[in-house]
Amino acid sequence: MTRSATTSIDLNADLGEGFGHWRLTDDEHLLSVVTSANVACGFHAGDPAIMRRVCDLAAERGVRIGAQVSYRDLAGFGRRSMDVPPAELAAEVAYQIGALEVFARAAGSRVAYVKPHGALYNRVVHDEEQAAAVVAGVLLAGEGRAVLGLPGSRLLAAAEEAGLPVVTEAFADRAYTARATLVPRGTAGAVVSDPDAVVARAVSMALDGTVVAASGEPVPVGAGSLCVHGDTPGAVELARRVRAALEAAGVRVAAFS
Amino acid sequence: MTRSATTSIDLNADLGEGFGHWRLTDDEHLLSVVTSANVACGFHAGDPAIMRRVCDLAAERGVRIGAQVSYRDLAGFGRRSMDVPPAELAAEVAYQIGALEVFARAAGSRVAYVKPHGALYNRVVHDEEQAAAVVAGVLLAGEGRAVLGLPGSRLLAAAEEAGLPVVTEAFADRAYTARATLVPRGTAGAVVSDPDAVVARAVSMALDGTVVAASGEPVPVGAGSLCVHGDTPGAVELARRVRAALEAAGVRVAAFS
Amino acid sequence: MTRSATTSIDLNADLGEGFGHWRLTDDEHLLSVVTSANVACGFHAGDPAIMRRVCDLAAERGVRIGAQVSYRDLAGFGRRSMDVPPAELAAEVAYQIGALEVFARAAGSRVAYVKPHGALYNRVVHDEEQAAAVVAGVLLAGEGRAVLGLPGSRLLAAAEEAGLPVVTEAFADRAYTARATLVPRGTAGAVVSDPDAVVARAVSMALDGTVVAASGEPVPVGAGSLCVHGDTPGAVELARRVRAALEAAGVRVAAFS
Amino acid sequence: MTRSATTSIDLNADLGEGFGHWRLTDDEHLLSVVTSANVACGFHAGDPAIMRRVCDLAAERGVRIGAQVSYRDLAGFGRRSMDVPPAELAAEVAYQIGALEVFARAAGSRVAYVKPHGALYNRVVHDEEQAAAVVAGVLLAGEGRAVLGLPGSRLLAAAEEAGLPVVTEAFADRAYTARATLVPRGTAGAVVSDPDAVVARAVSMALDGTVVAASGEPVPVGAGSLCVHGDTPGAVELARRVRAALEAAGVRVAAFS
Repeated sequence: MTRSATTSIDLNADLGEGFGHWRLTDDEHLLSVVTSANVACGFHAGDPAIMRRVCDLAAERGVRIGAQVSYRDLAGFGRRSMDVPPAELAAEVAYQIGALEVFARAAGSRVAYVKPHGALYNRVVHDEEQAAAVVAGVLLAGEGRAVLGLPGSRLLAAAEEAGLPVVTEAFADRAYTARATLVPRGTAGAVVSDPDAVVARAVSMALDGTVVAASGEPVPVGAGSLCVHGDTPGAVELARRVRAALEAAGVRVAAFS
Repeated sequence: MTRSATTSIDLNADLGEGFGHWRLTDDEHLLSVVTSANVACGFHAGDPAIMRRVCDLAAERGVRIGAQVSYRDLAGFGRRSMDVPPAELAAEVAYQIGALEVFARAAGSRVAYVKPHGALYNRVVHDEEQAAAVVAGVLLAGEGRAVLGLPGSRLLAAAEEAGLPVVTEAFADRAYTARATLVPRGTAGAVVSDPDAVVARAVSMALDGTVVAASGEPVPVGAGSLCVHGDTPGAVELARRVRAALEAAGVRVAAFS
Repeated sequence: MTRSATTSIDLNADLGEGFGHWRLTDDEHLLSVVTSANVACGFHAGDPAIMRRVCDLAAERGVRIGAQVSYRDLAGFGRRSMDVPPAELAAEVAYQIGALEVFARAAGSRVAYVKPHGALYNRVVHDEEQAAAVVAGVLLAGEGRAVLGLPGSRLLAAAEEAGLPVVTEAFADRAYTARATLVPRGTAGAVVSDPDAVVARAVSMALDGTVVAASGEPVPVGAGSLCVHGDTPGAVELARRVRAALEAAGVRVAAFS
Repeated sequence: MTRSATTSIDLNADLGEGFGHWRLTDDEHLLSVVTSANVACGFHAGDPAIMRRVCDLAAERGVRIGAQVSYRDLAGFGRRSMDVPPAELAAEVAYQIGALEVFARAAGSRVAYVKPHGALYNRVVHDEEQAAAVVAGVLLAGEGRAVLGLPGSRLLAAAEEAGLPVVTEAFADRAYTARATLVPRGTAGAVVSDPDAVVARAVSMALDGTVVAASGEPVPVGAGSLCVHGDTPGAVELARRVRAALEAAGVRVAAFS
């Protein structure tokens, strides 16, 4: 499912990241733009009522549903790396998928893929044990779901080895190194904040499978899916511009197959 | 599925009621005695690793798996009645069923029924709104699962109306009033503590569908399933005696059909 | 401390009602308007880092700090009534006060009063047992703190009986009945949404200790403190207008003594 | 406060490690043996009602009260290392101390010291940033409380630098390396399970300030306080034997000064 150049691309966003009385993501509007919804499953955000509503909206609009699984960490929004023993982590991943599946099915859809959230996403880039645990959780939940992650990550390697479909993800608003990895957050220039640049990079990623690295040369990025952020002011507007530019460039915006 | 007299009976127990480092129920031994396991789903007790283990053991021993759904209340063990709005409650019930279903399926079984826990169990005896919300949650989770509850409860009425199978539950260790309702906890004599009496009552319930009320006369009890408590010292031993006495009396101990 | 008419009035608002990554109240700006801050203590909202920050800001601006104690219910934002046994509730109230006191003291201030939040606030209007438990928690935490609540409530009665100072609270944006109680939310006209009316009612409450009831006649309201809501759009602007109007009418806006 | 040899020693144990309906430590009996109680503060275990009860019992028996502060991790019992940002961690530590202080004071005592729990305890042995954050939390909570930890740890270094009293802790049931550090759990022989050996080591630690390392030679251990475990079967009995043997050897068992 990995591809380096394509004229079709998936747009994914993290959705349903409120909890109880709190709201974060503009689920309603983002679901008019993206083709895949990473739905929070209650461990870093997302209560059952929110999960249900997001699944209903996603199904209504033909947006694919994925489980955005996380460490159990509401207070830290899943952004704090945790040494969770593998057997616990696998069970926690399966639990979250199963909970979401109920709402996806009730809406006439299904949980088609799994994407780790926050600190877990970053950790399974290099942590073999936790990567294997996440894949074990996906397998435990059955259905042969696809795994969405960074190209070159331990997670995608483990998923591939287990025979699961994998989808590589690229970030139009993040700087890349000459080795095609992400410039770490906190480094100057790690985040691309100019909307025009983000839009141009998205188009380049989708058309050529490349992006210009911080060092100036084009590097390949596996772009099975482009991540669009939904928790900042102007996020929806930027996502709309990205989508419009992709379509104007002749790229078909559709959920990965 | 309600029956007043039978020569076959189901034995159910609450299982998997630990959380993280804490343990409560003797899951291992109770699963050798009962025919239906009410598995805690994480809201009052039961973390994903425990849920997985209990489902594995239950499937191995041919014990039917049910979701023991609860208010979200770890600190109160689900024993504090809560005014949860119906839409939230329905979603929470569905969430718990879905999470457990993953482990039941991974073990080659399925979640066959739903039983509310603690304060929710007591509340849906008379609270029409919450009873309807629990049933809505069961329906949301699909699969037409059976609902286990008190005969005469709003819960079973709502489940029947919704076309779901219902299973009536009786308690051999609880005193009954002349109107066949439970003597409220806290009232003198509400709990039958003499093991011999508990065993005799269980046999009477299974064979005749009756029990002697606190007022002295036999009253009918709907005994689709007998509840065996598992969180007290001697619980496993008493459950074994109940089962042995039932079998000695010619009653077939088997999961409800 | 109760007073029916006064030329000095306290303005209080619920603050620090975010949690982890989520935000709700505009703490920064509201702390420039109010004289008393009801700080969430972690049970319905408010994590330690937020509590610390709000206490620092409040102390800096000379705003009095109070503990806004709640049921343990992050998922329901403390808005779901719960049957918490009195001994548990008292200990939970004391726990929250103690946790907040650390940040108040570190900022050079102290927790001067206690106000129940949400469902607990409403319940202790009439529930004698929980009202007594809240007061027991305040006493357990020592320091003879004031209790803020509805005039006529069980809470204030229990607090007075225990020898604690009490402060009566009035709501400029809520309709009152002819008996000077709040028109229940959900009833038509329960909330006054016209900003001009809210401002006029606040002035009337402060100057005369009365407000015009839904039935048309003026009724007395105990207005030791006026509650200003901070979780709606325009809340800060309305609070500013209320304060300006009070001052223009010659009312001194200051923390209750 | 560090001492290498002494004829007086403190015995500490982790207490109050239940939560809601769950129990773990035998608080009642351990409080008859130890001189310092590390009371769980609600983040890995310990609800307000339990905290209150343990403080009441400790004060009654003249046992010193300490705050056993932890990562926020009920599901992992605080045994999973977490990358908590320093400002959050400091606030969380202060929050826990403040909450416990209320119950200690209500019992006529005070929180005299702070000991990190589980994964946090292990992490601050070497993690300078988190060690500094814990000390910042202790300072934030004021009162110049003592910090209990491993000799040579970053935690004690940071506490000393901040001018806080430090107390070194030794474990009679853990093997030591030739460099006087603990043999890591998981290594063969890391835990000393023979009760006679544990008792003999405790006496040697108290009398000589040394213990025989796994490699055979005596090594110095800072023994301001001996930790007695309370969460295993036979724990209370072993603690009693350790105390009796210390007293028989002429060691005075008393809270550190």
